[in-house]
Amino acid sequence: MPDTTTTRDRKEVRDYIRTIADFPHEGILFRDVTTLFADPRGFRMAVDQMIHAWAGQQIDRVVGLEARGFILGGAIAHQLSLGFVPIRKKGKLPATTIAESYTLEYGEAVVEIHDDAIRPGEKVLLVDDLLATGGTAAAGIRLVERLGGSVMGCGFVVDLPDLGGRAKLEALGMDVHAICAYEGL
Amino acid sequence: MPDTTTTRDRKEVRDYIRTIADFPHEGILFRDVTTLFADPRGFRMAVDQMIHAWAGQQIDRVVGLEARGFILGGAIAHQLSLGFVPIRKKGKLPATTIAESYTLEYGEAVVEIHDDAIRPGEKVLLVDDLLATGGTAAAGIRLVERLGGSVMGCGFVVDLPDLGGRAKLEALGMDVHAICAYEGL
Repeated sequence: MPDTTTTRDRKEVRDYIRTIADFPHEGILFRDVTTLFADPRGFRMAVDQMIHAWAGQQIDRVVGLEARGFILGGAIAHQLSLGFVPIRKKGKLPATTIAESYTLEYGEAVVEIHDDAIRPGEKVLLVDDLLATGGTAAAGIRLVERLGGSVMGCGFVVDLPDLGGRAKLEALGMDVHAICAYEGL
Repeated sequence: MPDTTTTRDRKEVRDYIRTIADFPHEGILFRDVTTLFADPRGFRMAVDQMIHAWAGQQIDRVVGLEARGFILGGAIAHQLSLGFVPIRKKGKLPATTIAESYTLEYGEAVVEIHDDAIRPGEKVLLVDDLLATGGTAAAGIRLVERLGGSVMGCGFVVDLPDLGGRAKLEALGMDVHAICAYEGL
């Protein structure tokens, strides 16, 4: 750190994240990024650090996963003067979509993308706030690839490596970056 | 326009918006901003024009309405180095919230904000993609005011003035800005 660093400046991105016990159900330690996003310095640092990870690489489009990935993805796309494409839960997108399902703890969920949102050959940066099991991200990668694009990187604020998401995405050949990781469940 | 304007540059924000008939139900002309957001120039212009409207005014926090307001609000907050606060549908926020309900065509909906997300005296810019009846925005304003903040402006990409939202927000004393308006329903 430079000599000019003040006490306040020493706060890192992870220091702005709040942990909430038993949400959405008992036994889960929920990593709440809303306190990070609500802080002007925290949010600025989080978005900028997500961008730094891919400096110098070709990105044609930013894809964000509903809903917290929209907050980060919108900021990243605007900063880089790129277009932003949402991947949404089933039934939310108004035009023609393609869909992918993924497994949840109980049952499954479906995500969709507009079928004209990615052009063949485009390199896509996929972003979300948190990487847990990687199920949603993997479904997002399949959607991008079915439209002829390729995912050049997956960016997150938080990685929970013990839930296997990073290993799953890396096994798909993905370049994965997260600002901070929490060990344990 | 400057002499250096090219043919491509003459496209305005509204030219990137797609209209879809009969979504989410018959008789509705849905103004789809995803084609605007997906275009690098369109998205850049939309976010920048939303910011231009409030140049020189004090903004302490950007509040976005779920879910498309997250895309715009994240970009605006990052550009201005401000914190971003989400207003979400019921049950999505993990910590202690306050709630407001508003009337839909059939029934009602509830939106929530974390009760520590706004500090008393803060000036808030409220953003969403589209202003229709203004029900969600008015509920958002009530949430901010209940936490002691004040809404210094409401920013949208699209205004549908015939649905009464602009009149409703202006009757609340709000300063309302939208990049473009569509007359008729």
